[in-house]
Amino acid sequence: MGEPRRTYDDKLEQLLRTAAAVFAEKGYHPASIRDISRATGTSLSGLYYYFRSKEELLFLIQDHCFTTVLENLQQRLQGVPGPEERLRVLVDNHLRFFAANMNEMKVLSHEAASLNGEYRNRVNAHKKRYVELCASIMAGLRPDDSPAEHRAAALSLFGMMNWIYTWYHPERDLPVDELAALMTRVFLGGYRENGARAEHTLSDEAVSAPSIWRR
Amino acid sequence: MGEPRRTYDDKLEQLLRTAAAVFAEKGYHPASIRDISRATGTSLSGLYYYFRSKEELLFLIQDHCFTTVLENLQQRLQGVPGPEERLRVLVDNHLRFFAANMNEMKVLSHEAASLNGEYRNRVNAHKKRYVELCASIMAGLRPDDSPAEHRAAALSLFGMMNWIYTWYHPERDLPVDELAALMTRVFLGGYRENGARAEHTLSDEAVSAPSIWRR
Repeated sequence: MGEPRRTYDDKLEQLLRTAAAVFAEKGYHPASIRDISRATGTSLSGLYYYFRSKEELLFLIQDHCFTTVLENLQQRLQGVPGPEERLRVLVDNHLRFFAANMNEMKVLSHEAASLNGEYRNRVNAHKKRYVELCASIMAGLRPDDSPAEHRAAALSLFGMMNWIYTWYHPERDLPVDELAALMTRVFLGGYRENGARAEHTLSDEAVSAPSIWRR
Repeated sequence: MGEPRRTYDDKLEQLLRTAAAVFAEKGYHPASIRDISRATGTSLSGLYYYFRSKEELLFLIQDHCFTTVLENLQQRLQGVPGPEERLRVLVDNHLRFFAANMNEMKVLSHEAASLNGEYRNRVNAHKKRYVELCASIMAGLRPDDSPAEHRAAALSLFGMMNWIYTWYHPERDLPVDELAALMTRVFLGGYRENGARAEHTLSDEAVSAPSIWRR
């Protein structure tokens, strides 16, 4: 590709990066295209040269992030055979991207439902691939469990990791490699373990479906 | 309290419950007071008899939910001594409320940053109490770890549980008691375990802070 293409890509990347910061700070819905224009120092018509709408902008950020994280993971998983080691790589890859790109990852986690129609379908396709890859690792760890259990385990792990956008402050909290070690230890150690089911432990006073409203 | 008070409380509860459903479906920012009015069959001036603004409405939902979950937990924890059993009770209490009140819990998880000023401070005070209670259980499980590790462990557990608002469908996924058993097994089993640190496992090709943008 020649220079003009390169310039276009660089400019687009800079716009997406700044827009991710604006969405992360204000939220997608409250943020306006004018906010993006101000933050990027680009006129409205200049912005519309790169995307047609605020929703397309959100899609481009999410699409790009999922693609990068997934491609990187697949590359790092090549030649890694065992499910334990594969899980370690997945956690490490996910958390490192998260911690190094907190704005983008907040937008990914928090604004998933802000996309509609075809945009949403395309992002959901990435997400499905990612969850299935993780669930297949879970199946390697506990082959006798059901697919519903593998899915629940995969999504429990993603929850543990994705939630950090709500609380993690690199300057105050554990360094990311220690956080990855903690989550890997928790997940690998506990998930493979047998027994320790909860049936004997909870008293009957626990109502099965307590309402938040009626006490 | 007499009848008028009772009627007021019942009506407020019904409004909050319906508003939680509207916020869960549309998102807090896109939803308008007119949407709430339509969904509840209550005029705008009727609504403003119960709260002054959309933000106060969101605050009332969050405040009520945290208060209920925390009070219930503290009641259930009375006389429960060991950290293992206390953790089981915390997971069970949290997930049961979540699964039985998905709309409210989605609003709690997803719209935390939509509150400002005093409203936000008051909800954050509940959250702080809840995280500290959970971190103190973690400290009971691993007394030699640092406070930063106990905090990270508590927030990892909350992430695993709270994230279910994004994926859990009771009709398709594991029943809530099996989900609670899975998360308890993972967390208790893995968190207490020693060793299995990640240092020996990851190859050097892992960049320490990979950018989402530059490949």
